Amino acid sequence: MSLDPHVRDRILTAVDEAFDAQIAFTQELVRHPSLRTREGSAQQLLFEAMEQRGLQMDRWELDPEELSAHPGAGAIAVSYDEVVNVVGTWTPDVERGRSLILNGHVDVVPEGPAEQWSASPWDSYVKEGWLYGRGSGDMKAGLAANLFAFDAVRAAGFEPAGRIHLQSVVEEECTGNGSLAAHLRGYRADAVVIPEPEEDMLVRANVGVIWFRLEVAGQPTHPREMLAGFNAIDAAYYVVGKLRSLEAEWNDERAAHRYFEDLAHPINLNMGGIRGGDWPSSVPAWCHVDLRVALYPGLSAESVWKQITELLEGITADEQGNGIRAKAVRTGFFAEGYVLEEGSDAENVLKDAHRDVFGKELQSFVTPGYLDGRVFTLYADTPTLVYGPVSEAIHGYDERVDIESVRRITKSIALFIAEWCGLNAVER
Amino acid sequence: MSLDPHVRDRILTAVDEAFDAQIAFTQELVRHPSLRTREGSAQQLLFEAMEQRGLQMDRWELDPEELSAHPGAGAIAVSYDEVVNVVGTWTPDVERGRSLILNGHVDVVPEGPAEQWSASPWDSYVKEGWLYGRGSGDMKAGLAANLFAFDAVRAAGFEPAGRIHLQSVVEEECTGNGSLAAHLRGYRADAVVIPEPEEDMLVRANVGVIWFRLEVAGQPTHPREMLAGFNAIDAAYYVVGKLRSLEAEWNDERAAHRYFEDLAHPINLNMGGIRGGDWPSSVPAWCHVDLRVALYPGLSAESVWKQITELLEGITADEQGNGIRAKAVRTGFFAEGYVLEEGSDAENVLKDAHRDVFGKELQSFVTPGYLDGRVFTLYADTPTLVYGPVSEAIHGYDERVDIESVRRITKSIALFIAEWCGLNAVER
Repeated sequence: MSLDPHVRDRILTAVDEAFDAQIAFTQELVRHPSLRTREGSAQQLLFEAMEQRGLQMDRWELDPEELSAHPGAGAIAVSYDEVVNVVGTWTPDVERGRSLILNGHVDVVPEGPAEQWSASPWDSYVKEGWLYGRGSGDMKAGLAANLFAFDAVRAAGFEPAGRIHLQSVVEEECTGNGSLAAHLRGYRADAVVIPEPEEDMLVRANVGVIWFRLEVAGQPTHPREMLAGFNAIDAAYYVVGKLRSLEAEWNDERAAHRYFEDLAHPINLNMGGIRGGDWPSSVPAWCHVDLRVALYPGLSAESVWKQITELLEGITADEQGNGIRAKAVRTGFFAEGYVLEEGSDAENVLKDAHRDVFGKELQSFVTPGYLDGRVFTLYADTPTLVYGPVSEAIHGYDERVDIESVRRITKSIALFIAEWCGLNAVER
Repeated sequence: MSLDPHVRDRILTAVDEAFDAQIAFTQELVRHPSLRTREGSAQQLLFEAMEQRGLQMDRWELDPEELSAHPGAGAIAVSYDEVVNVVGTWTPDVERGRSLILNGHVDVVPEGPAEQWSASPWDSYVKEGWLYGRGSGDMKAGLAANLFAFDAVRAAGFEPAGRIHLQSVVEEECTGNGSLAAHLRGYRADAVVIPEPEEDMLVRANVGVIWFRLEVAGQPTHPREMLAGFNAIDAAYYVVGKLRSLEAEWNDERAAHRYFEDLAHPINLNMGGIRGGDWPSSVPAWCHVDLRVALYPGLSAESVWKQITELLEGITADEQGNGIRAKAVRTGFFAEGYVLEEGSDAENVLKDAHRDVFGKELQSFVTPGYLDGRVFTLYADTPTLVYGPVSEAIHGYDERVDIESVRRITKSIALFIAEWCGLNAVER
């Protein structure tokens, strides 16, 4: 860390001084239920917050046609009307430092049954050092951390000497099309920081993810002659069992995939939803299962998709000889994994900042979940630091983020900005 | 059969003469998609058809409150606003014969995916001796057979000498509340005929049916840590497996149930629908399974319900120790089975009519499906003849009814009317 210790202290103090406001802003963000296609009010809040900071604002609707032409786009199952990305750009008067994208996603996953939550998932509250609410960890705390880390540099009396794009993107939880759209709009930088909830660690590698719907047809009949028909729900379970064999094979191959050797179960096939049948007294004719599967970095989504579709084409009957027709339809993510190659300048700068704030070495780890980092890594060859706070129960009930972890992550990002972009003194 | 052979011939000829019209009327009925709560237009058609025949008409909305007070009512999951039964009553000038209810249900089960049908399920057509369409067999052919059998007696130059109630009821496919409502309205007779699609046979005994929703809760999480969560869809499958053990026990007991000794699998537990999860990349928090289970006649619905709920209360975890919470909610049928005791006058009259028309003995059989016959048998102690045409794929795709079978069944019912109610000559 080449920062002057006094500068460092002033930046860290600035984070502390604004931290109550940062938590309040995070809570306000959580109170906007920015579920898929309903991110508008949260994006408006972020737009205004960036605009107040004097950033050059950009806001645009995602373009399904433009996206669909890109091999990394996810299948689009919703209308993108009024589904917008927000980017605020800081351009220094004298641009002499390295540029940076501070990225975060504003969309959150569905909250599930409200009665399973201790309090409303949208009425963010703080309890025993945790900030609660759907999206608190994943990743509104991170979006706010980006903004307040940027603030801290300026509150300390400096200006970043490199260009910074503060990105708030949509669609991270389903397609990755939000960050991809920002990429297609031309945003590039020398490094990217994405404060996803990563337990105060840096993501070294992650998986790709494919979403698809398994559509299974059975043979409906009246249950009085149930054994003559074939229940599509049972058939779907049979087919999912076959896909689980493929999942097991993939997990068995983990030793061949750098960084994944020591993970117990890196490739998860998740049954995320199921719908089947129309009537309790009819043997169901159809069953649809929404699935999410992971793939190792280095594998193409197309090759994995081919394995899945060929497996399904090969299933014509179950062990009892009941005919089955099964097909897979892409419903979202068609994304590949990535590796953050070791030894980049960006990582080294983050290591220093982290050590300074946390008092210990930055750990890196491998995560078997999708990350927008793949857009910047795979399509712009940019070192991307996915690094963020401690959370619990993301995608679950009583999702929460550790407030002191958020404070330290914010400090670490602020020091990273100062060191990576360099600082210009402000004329007072 | 005490009918004069000339009278007999005139009645059978009358069925033949009107048979094209009968088939056309059946097709028109099929073209009304009288799915649950949407029976209105089909009921209007039947109301008008009965009214044109000079019957005394009655039409009323089902009363949830009145029904709920009866132990045989099914749980009401829909609004009964504008859900009506239609009854047309024939009262002879001189009432000297036995009275009769000709009952049929107008509601049909959902058609399922339209693309699985060779043609629209609602655009009834005739092909190679079969009349196609949802509800063709179950049981619009039967409803029309009742009406045209009644017509044939009069077209032959007579009038039934006993009171006849032509009933078109709703809710047979889900609760049995339609026929129960007709019972509660006070309709009684000395015998009941219900031309359900029964393969030219008479139902000797049938099962009761209970509908319920199994609601299972899991432990949601992000699929990156999938093994730490517990998928509610998997949990639901585990619980259904436990219910299947109960189903197996019940089937093992069949030797103790008169008429069910020789059936391979009389008690069917059908998974008719499943819904679970909200998001492919979340481990599902909930899963609901719509189930239909049968019970032997003589068993109370309450006793079977107690077995089910006690089983569920005893399930607290799966074999891996994952916590499960499962409960059952009644969603429809709460109906007991019945036996048509052998040797009734009504059965004897039908045997004669059947032998006369079909040239062979009437066979009786046991069916593991719900029948509205239970209302008249259990609550009014009335011999109830569930007897109807050959069909295929009821509740399935390309549902169809055998047209020549319908002709013979109509003839058989017409002769039954003549013999059961007796005939008055018409003043010409």
